[in-house]
Amino acid sequence: MERRSFLKKATVGAGLGVLAAPAIVHAQTQIRWRLASSFPKGLDTIFGAAETFSKMVSSATGGKFQISIHPAGEIVPPLQVLDAVQNATVEAAHTAPYYFFGKDETFALDCAIPFGMNSRQMSAWVYEGNGLKLMREFYKAYNIVNFPMGNTGAQMGGWYRKEIKSVNDIKGLKMRIGGFAGKVLERLGGVPANIPGGEVYSALEKGRIDAAEWVGPYDDEKLGFNKVAPYYYYPAWWEGGPQLSLYINQKAWDALPAEYQTIVEAAASHAHVDMQAKYDAKNPAALKRLIANKTKLRRFSKDYMQAAYKESQALYAELSDKNPNWKTVYEDWVKFRNDQVAWGRYTEQGFDQFMSDALK
Amino acid sequence: MERRSFLKKATVGAGLGVLAAPAIVHAQTQIRWRLASSFPKGLDTIFGAAETFSKMVSSATGGKFQISIHPAGEIVPPLQVLDAVQNATVEAAHTAPYYFFGKDETFALDCAIPFGMNSRQMSAWVYEGNGLKLMREFYKAYNIVNFPMGNTGAQMGGWYRKEIKSVNDIKGLKMRIGGFAGKVLERLGGVPANIPGGEVYSALEKGRIDAAEWVGPYDDEKLGFNKVAPYYYYPAWWEGGPQLSLYINQKAWDALPAEYQTIVEAAASHAHVDMQAKYDAKNPAALKRLIANKTKLRRFSKDYMQAAYKESQALYAELSDKNPNWKTVYEDWVKFRNDQVAWGRYTEQGFDQFMSDALK
Repeated sequence: MERRSFLKKATVGAGLGVLAAPAIVHAQTQIRWRLASSFPKGLDTIFGAAETFSKMVSSATGGKFQISIHPAGEIVPPLQVLDAVQNATVEAAHTAPYYFFGKDETFALDCAIPFGMNSRQMSAWVYEGNGLKLMREFYKAYNIVNFPMGNTGAQMGGWYRKEIKSVNDIKGLKMRIGGFAGKVLERLGGVPANIPGGEVYSALEKGRIDAAEWVGPYDDEKLGFNKVAPYYYYPAWWEGGPQLSLYINQKAWDALPAEYQTIVEAAASHAHVDMQAKYDAKNPAALKRLIANKTKLRRFSKDYMQAAYKESQALYAELSDKNPNWKTVYEDWVKFRNDQVAWGRYTEQGFDQFMSDALK
Repeated sequence: MERRSFLKKATVGAGLGVLAAPAIVHAQTQIRWRLASSFPKGLDTIFGAAETFSKMVSSATGGKFQISIHPAGEIVPPLQVLDAVQNATVEAAHTAPYYFFGKDETFALDCAIPFGMNSRQMSAWVYEGNGLKLMREFYKAYNIVNFPMGNTGAQMGGWYRKEIKSVNDIKGLKMRIGGFAGKVLERLGGVPANIPGGEVYSALEKGRIDAAEWVGPYDDEKLGFNKVAPYYYYPAWWEGGPQLSLYINQKAWDALPAEYQTIVEAAASHAHVDMQAKYDAKNPAALKRLIANKTKLRRFSKDYMQAAYKESQALYAELSDKNPNWKTVYEDWVKFRNDQVAWGRYTEQGFDQFMSDALK
C-alpha cells in the first residue's frame, strides 16, 4: 500500500481547495480481470454488452477495477467459456447459458427454451421471482456466480433456401440452430447442426445446410445471410427472449471488496437493459433494409408451430423424469411463465394489439 | 480529511494480512442527499424503486454516499418535487414526469402519453434512441439531470361503478385520471379529476367520482378500490408503459466525483429493470385475488378506444403547432414509436400471441 502517494494526493487536494468535486482517494488496490465472451467482436449488440459492463465498472471505481473483454476464440473457443470460468482460467465470461445443455439441460432455463418466456417475463423471473436464487444454487457446482446481462428479445426464425409451408417440410431439413432447440427440431424429423456464427454463411451458401437461424435483422444482416437464402421466417418458437449471463468465478467474486461486488451487480443490470434497448433500437431499420433488398418475410405455419409446441412439452416431461436439477428449476419456471402469459392477455397485450392495429 | 483514521485502518489491514478481500480505503468524504418521492411509502413497488436505488448507491460506496428517501408529503407535496429539485430544496426526486404537463406538455413524453410506447419500447428510446439526449436538453431549463428509473408496464383502465359499454358512457363521467390523459378524456365529454392517491378511495366510495384509475392489480388491491367499484377495465389507453424518472439537481450532480456519477447511473438502471420486474412478478397473483373477490374484468369497447385514439392525435397536432419543445421531442418520439410497433408485429408479437393461444 503506497501511503506516501496517498498523503501527497491528499495534500494537493487540500491545497487547491477550489475543486468542485471532493477528491476520492482509494487505496492503491488495482484489480484486473479477464472476461471471455462467447461472441465475436463484430457484433456490437451482444459483444458490446460486455464492453458496456466493463466500462461502467472501470468508471465507477476510478479505473481501479479493470475487466478486459476478449472475443470468442481469443483465450478459449466460444463454447468453452464455462470451463474457463469454472477452472479460473479467466475470472468472468459473457455467454448464452443454453450452449451448455449438453452438460445439463438446466442451463437452458437460464437463457431460453422453446416456447419459453419473452424478454420482460424472463427479467421478472430472475430479478423478482425465484429465477436468480434457483440458478445460483445450480451454478454452485460449477464454481460460478451468475448475473443476468442482456437479452436479444424474440428472435427471428431464420433464413431458408426454400419455403417451409408446413411441418412436413421440416423432415430432412438441415438447419443451423442453437443447441437445445435442435432436440425439438430432431423430433420433427429435422437435422440440426451446431455451427459457430463465423461459418454459417459459407455452409448456407454451399448448400451444406438448408437453413440457418442466428438472431434478428440487425445481426443477421451483418452476417449476410440474406444474400444466400431468400426466405426469412418468424417467430423463432425456440427463442422468445434468450437471456445472456455474466459468469464470475466464485473465488474471484469472494475476493472482491463488498463495494466492487455491488458495482458489478449494478453495472450488469445497466448492460442488461441497454443490450435489449440496442436490439430494439437497431432492428427496425435493419428489417426495412432487408426487405428493400428482396428478403421475403414469412410467418411459420400454424401446424408447424403446434407440432413443435407439442414435442417441446413431451421433451420437458421426459427431462423432469430423468434430471432432478431440471425438475427443480422447471417447476418454478413453468408456473411463473404461465402466470405471466395469463396476466399478459389483459392490459399489456390489449394495449400492444390496439397499437398494432391502429398504426397499420 | 481524517488522515489519522486512514493510517490506522491501513495499518490494521496490513497487520491482518489474511483478509480475502483487499481493503478499499476511501477519503472520508461523506455525501448526504435527500430524495423526495412523489409516492407514498405503502407502495413497495413504485416507492420501493427509490429505496432499491439508494441502498445500491450506499453499498457501492461503502456507505460514503447516503441518499435518504422521503415519501410524498414529508418534505414537499407529491407534485412539488420538481420545484424542490429545481430550487435545490432537495438534491433528488423520484417521480412520474407527466405530473408536470401543466408547466410544459413535453414532460409527458418522458413518461407516458395516450397511445404511447410500452415499457420496453420506452427503454429503447431512452437508452439507445434519442430519448435521453432530447430530454436532457429539455430539463436544462429546470436545472435537472434525469435518469430513467422504473416503469409499471401497461396499466389497467381503472375501476368503474357502472359499466362503460361505448364511448357514449364517457359523457359526464367523473373520473380520477392521471394529469395529461385528462385532456383527452375531456374531449370525449368526460370530467377528469386529479385526486392524490390517498384520497381516491373515499371519493369513489362517496360517489363524488364515478371511476378512478391508479396503476394495476397489485397496487390497486392495496388501495381497496375493488370494494367500492365492481368493474375493472383494460387496457389503460393512456398508459401503455409509463416510465418513472430520477431527477437530480444540476449543481449537486456536478459536485459529485466522477465515480459516484457512474454509480448513480448504474444503480438507477438496476432500479429501472427491478421495478418493472416487481410489477410483473406481483400483478398476476393480485389479479387472481381480485377476480376471486368478485371483481368484474371488462375490456374497453373498440369504439371508445378508437375515439380516444382520434382525439389524442388531434391533441398532439395542436401541441406541435403551439409548443416548440413538444414538437422537437414528439417528432423523434413518434418516428421511434412507429418503427417499434411495425417491427413488433413480426416476431415479438407472433411469439407472444402463440403463447397466449397455446396456454388458454
